[in-house]
This record gives sequence, structure tokens and C-alpha cells, in this order.
Amino acid sequence: MNDPSRKYFNCTDRERAIFESGIKLGAIFHQFIGVPVNDSNRKDMENAIEKSIKLQPFVESISVKINIEGQRNTSFQYVSLSGDMLDVRLAIRYNDQEVKARMQYMQDLNYPLMYLEE
Amino acid sequence: MNDPSRKYFNCTDRERAIFESGIKLGAIFHQFIGVPVNDSNRKDMENAIEKSIKLQPFVESISVKINIEGQRNTSFQYVSLSGDMLDVRLAIRYNDQEVKARMQYMQDLNYPLMYLEE
Amino acid sequence: MNDPSRKYFNCTDRERAIFESGIKLGAIFHQFIGVPVNDSNRKDMENAIEKSIKLQPFVESISVKINIEGQRNTSFQYVSLSGDMLDVRLAIRYNDQEVKARMQYMQDLNYPLMYLEE
Amino acid sequence: MNDPSRKYFNCTDRERAIFESGIKLGAIFHQFIGVPVNDSNRKDMENAIEKSIKLQPFVESISVKINIEGQRNTSFQYVSLSGDMLDVRLAIRYNDQEVKARMQYMQDLNYPLMYLEE
Repeated sequence: MNDPSRKYFNCTDRERAIFESGIKLGAIFHQFIGVPVNDSNRKDMENAIEKSIKLQPFVESISVKINIEGQRNTSFQYVSLSGDMLDVRLAIRYNDQEVKARMQYMQDLNYPLMYLEE
Repeated sequence: MNDPSRKYFNCTDRERAIFESGIKLGAIFHQFIGVPVNDSNRKDMENAIEKSIKLQPFVESISVKINIEGQRNTSFQYVSLSGDMLDVRLAIRYNDQEVKARMQYMQDLNYPLMYLEE
Repeated sequence: MNDPSRKYFNCTDRERAIFESGIKLGAIFHQFIGVPVNDSNRKDMENAIEKSIKLQPFVESISVKINIEGQRNTSFQYVSLSGDMLDVRLAIRYNDQEVKARMQYMQDLNYPLMYLEE
Repeated sequence: MNDPSRKYFNCTDRERAIFESGIKLGAIFHQFIGVPVNDSNRKDMENAIEKSIKLQPFVESISVKINIEGQRNTSFQYVSLSGDMLDVRLAIRYNDQEVKARMQYMQDLNYPLMYLEE
């Protein structure tokens, strides 16, 4: 594995993978919230988010789902992407360490939670 | 043409088309600047921007080009989308009035200019 | 009035003011949606949005209000800025022409409408 | 310390602090890139970024600096905030564990690096 930024870090491989997974989830939320979506472009946007985040370092795999159901429709037949619509599964690998992270709206928190699955 | 927001406006059809074209160009710049791009996802991102902006009212057609050439590469083989990389052509129609607008980096201004072509 | 981009436009002063007002409203929505807000930082964020948009060309005045009331609280005591929370009043002047534009959530449309007031 | 999301995590306190620090840095970059800045609003924007990110969970302290020097000026006397202009120092505390993270443009990488300082 090549990491041109390695010299700047002083942590374990697992800690690095965890740090990188946080970056990616924070990036997805704050980059894409606000994008116009409805059923006609949902898959294109999921695909575009996945492919752009995959360019960031150490992303092993990523799956983005946008849940539009349950959103109150507007007079213009689309909604702005909001955090409660996002379901993201992410795997980050740094050397031998793989970490699985997720963003998912949690009803009990009324919050789009970013958390570590493994 | 159906416009559920018509009652809120007091202007000509051409003025409305011009207003709407400004909204779309401001939206594209400020929504998508910062997205990770390189040659592998350029077309997916162009497509996703076009399809999302097309959902906004009165967009007749839109073409988005991302120019990566000339960008200094980073150690991680992608760049963040910046305004000077965007070339957008937009047609807005409101009733019989069609307006063509564009966003393009202008070297003499060192500025990604949004302007009216017709 | 100095406009280094004038040569790229072929429209009336009023049309230019209308176009510029659309850009600013599209910019505000798509730049700032997603920002964490609650009562403790509301005024700082309103001020920061106003001052940043005032840098864009031909802004005569701008007032941004963030309405947090009525938002369902989260377990972390803040919410992400959404379009229905924004109330923006904007005046754009191009030469002798002044245009007033506004962004405001319209309940009948379930939509944060950007419109021309005058 | 109160953490309403604790049940969703299965990791050490230090790992949690590291994860949260990644989220915040990813959030800052992708939320605020594109904002218009020059010397007149630089401090307001630094302050607004700091106060909004402080609302996110477990932020002990944060300092944001925007470096405008060295940016090529535009014909409109402001620039769009870009990653190479940001210098962020962040402390995250989860129970007894404190982690220091930073975002800083690294010339050798031509990249705004997010890294762990301690």
C-alpha cells in the first residue's frame, strides 16, 4: 500500500482507518446535502456520490442509498437531499486493517448518525 | 406551462427566465465545488449535476463540462472541483421566453463568470 | 459603477440586476444548507452569510434570518440548516436599476421559494 | 459525559474520539469550500465555522484560520474559499480520551491534509 502522507501520522493502522472513515462520512453529508433529487435522478446521484468518494484515500468499498419515500412532496416534484434520506455503508482499509462505518438516520435520536459497525 | 409559484411574481416572462437562470448557475457552483474528481468519475459527475439541476423549475436544457486538464495533480490522484473547472450551458424557458446562460472561467477576470448569452 | 465583466453581457441594466439576484439566492441555499445551527450560533451564521454574499458583485444590501423555531430537536441539541429555515432579503443594484429579491419558505408550495419582490 | 448514541458503537474511547475528529474535518472542508472571502469577512467566517462545528458532538476546542495571502486576486476583489486556504486545529474529547487533529495544506502533497497530531 502506498501512502504519501504516512510521515504525518503517528497512530496504529486501525486508528488511521477509523480516522479516514470519519472524514468520508463527514464529507458526504456536507458536500451533497441540498442536491435536488426525486426518483428520476436518484440512482445517478447515488452513483456519482459513490464514485467521487471512492477517489478519496483508502476507500475499499462504498454503497450510497437515497431514501425519498416518506418525504413530503413539494409543488415542484423534487426535494433537496437531507441527512435523514442518506444510508451509507463504507469500508476503509489501511494496510491489514479494515473498518466498516455507516451513516444512517436514527429515529430515536432524530439524527443522521455516523457510526462504526466493526 | 404550470407554475404553482406564479402568484408570487410580478415581472415579465423574460425577466422570470433570467432570474431562474441565475438561480441555477449559483446553485451549481455552490453545491458541487469541492467534489473529488479525476478522469475516472468526470462523466458521472457531469451527468449527475445535469440531472439534478434539470429537476429545478423551467430548465429546458443543460450541459455541464468539467475541465480537469491543466490542474496540478495531487499525491492522491484526484482534485477538488473548483469554479475554474466548470463550463455550464443552460437554457431556461418560461412560457414563450427562452434565455441562454453560461458559467465559464474567464482568464482576463480570473473568475468563473456567470453570464447571459442571449 | 465599475463592471469588469460588462463586455460579456448584452442585456438591460434591470435584466442584469435580476440575473445577479438569482445567482446570489441560489448561492446562499446551496452553499450553507447543512451547516450545524442552534440558538447559540444563529446570529454568527446569519452575519457570516450576509458578509460573504455582500462580496459578490452588485449587492446593495442583504439580510439573512435563520428560523429555528418549529424544528424538531435532535439528541445532539442542534439541527442542520435546511431551506425552510432561511428568510433572505436581498437588494441588487446595477447602475440605476435596483431589484429586490427574497427567499422564503412557502407553506402552500412546501418549498423555499426564491422570488422577485419588485 | 452524555452520549445518546453510545449503544450504536463498539469501540474504545480513543477510537471514538479519532472517528469523531475525522467527521469534523471532512465536514468543514465540504461544507465551506466555495464561500466568498477576502480580508473584510475573513474573521467573521473563521468565527462562524468554529461556532458551527463546536455544536457537533465531543468538540473540546477548535481554531480555524483562513489564509488568503498568496491567492491570485480576481476582478471582483474576493476569492472562493479553497482547501489550500484552510488551517484547522481541532481537539475532540470522549470521556478521558483527547485527540488532536488538524487540516493543513501540505506543499509536498499539493493536498489539504487531514491528520492526527496526537
